[in-house]
Amino acid sequence: MIERIAILGTGLLGTSVGLALRAAGFRGAIVGWNRGAEGAQTALAAGAIDSIAADPLQAARKSQLVLLAVPIYATLDFMEKLSGVLGPEHLVTDVGSTKRLISEAAARLYNTPQRAAFLPGHPMAGKERGGASLGDANLFRDAVWLFTDDPAVQRSPHSAELVKSWRAWVAAMGARTLDLDPARHDELVAWVSHLPQFVATALSALLQEEVGAAPELKDVGGRALREMTRLGSSPYSMWRDIAYTNTEAVEHALLALEQRLAHLRENLRSPELRNEFEQAHRFRHE
Amino acid sequence: MIERIAILGTGLLGTSVGLALRAAGFRGAIVGWNRGAEGAQTALAAGAIDSIAADPLQAARKSQLVLLAVPIYATLDFMEKLSGVLGPEHLVTDVGSTKRLISEAAARLYNTPQRAAFLPGHPMAGKERGGASLGDANLFRDAVWLFTDDPAVQRSPHSAELVKSWRAWVAAMGARTLDLDPARHDELVAWVSHLPQFVATALSALLQEEVGAAPELKDVGGRALREMTRLGSSPYSMWRDIAYTNTEAVEHALLALEQRLAHLRENLRSPELRNEFEQAHRFRHE
Repeated sequence: MIERIAILGTGLLGTSVGLALRAAGFRGAIVGWNRGAEGAQTALAAGAIDSIAADPLQAARKSQLVLLAVPIYATLDFMEKLSGVLGPEHLVTDVGSTKRLISEAAARLYNTPQRAAFLPGHPMAGKERGGASLGDANLFRDAVWLFTDDPAVQRSPHSAELVKSWRAWVAAMGARTLDLDPARHDELVAWVSHLPQFVATALSALLQEEVGAAPELKDVGGRALREMTRLGSSPYSMWRDIAYTNTEAVEHALLALEQRLAHLRENLRSPELRNEFEQAHRFRHE
Repeated sequence: MIERIAILGTGLLGTSVGLALRAAGFRGAIVGWNRGAEGAQTALAAGAIDSIAADPLQAARKSQLVLLAVPIYATLDFMEKLSGVLGPEHLVTDVGSTKRLISEAAARLYNTPQRAAFLPGHPMAGKERGGASLGDANLFRDAVWLFTDDPAVQRSPHSAELVKSWRAWVAAMGARTLDLDPARHDELVAWVSHLPQFVATALSALLQEEVGAAPELKDVGGRALREMTRLGSSPYSMWRDIAYTNTEAVEHALLALEQRLAHLRENLRSPELRNEFEQAHRFRHE
């Protein structure tokens, strides 16, 4: 059903989707566009896309499925522009890490009988650094791919077919789909994705100040330290948009962790420390 | 020079030392003792030790090198007992994660011309769970093995030779040695080892409370979340002793992280967030 896909943004996620689609047997056309020319060239050379579009809006018009794989504010910007040039024959979807603003824009600009359909999506996959050169056909294998506000229920049979077809490709890439309410999505990812990232950032920044002047001491911590600070390499450009669009939920999660650390600090020599270790153990093993 | 080694405690570290010594070509005898019989049997079956000692003190007497590979308070207990039965022909060393109390006990009970030598040691290696069955000949490869208060300088040529020989075996196991003052050691590991562990514990315990009731949501976070919470499986029995013997330094590090998280939380929408990401990035890449 989907024979032509436009991937707007060939960074880590966009390039990985192209590679994963090919690995899963997609035989249609994949056209790519990227803000920086180098990323598009890398995606083309890797076989993630067949051609590079000069004009992203025109490339989108000529496709049935448009995947927005850019940071959140750039996604919102594309949503505005594309809503004016696309029609009911198109399905647009995205990979943004927060969904409340994107769902609001989708309700405002898409998903009426005269307009294109929009399916907000969020694959829970990534690497500690971005970029087309890290693109990976297996990035979504065993990952969860979240959707919010599936427009299929309230739309034409045509867009329902497009949504069904895209969901089948997501499954073919190895991901498991899960549908959530957008507010619940943003609250949940604040805990399981944004909080771990901001903790890694704060821990890495603090350790840089405390032991950074003695580089040989960085090696002392070994594997555990490397794991706990690996996300310290994550790109600011992506996380700035997340911090801006999910501020309240992230603030709430950070404050809860500050309080939890204080509780642990006050109980280093009390039996309560055992309870904390047991509770932590349950998260890993239940 | 060292022909007979007693490993007291055949958990993850003790078993791994036995396996690593064999892999590095050690041909002498290795006798093992463990509080629980099963751990000793597992170490024996894996080839980490040649025989199981019924009496750890007697096994120590018959060896040139005694490795204490038990939690810190058990190490201190063995140090008391062994100091009465060993003599200048013996070198005792350990793998404890804090060194101030152990260094004090070494100065009090060892390292005079009539007594055994004691070399406080701390290999910066481990796994998220303990136990002989996870023993690994490559555990110390590329790890840092810290020493404090090397007694060789103030002792007889004989104990200096024993220390030199043990250091050579540590290098043969693939580790890099580094000598630190014991107070500096405890301060440093509070940052690069204890803080990451307690953060993983607090984060895991908090997430268990927030999303633990919906196990399918645990998978949503993916690889990054798994990394940031893997240490949540660490054994309480080991960390209790660390919390008790390095309380002040750990309190200081935890409080500093609480303040750093609050700072980040207050700057989610300010340009200061970029500075935090850049500082974090430097820790990973400088």
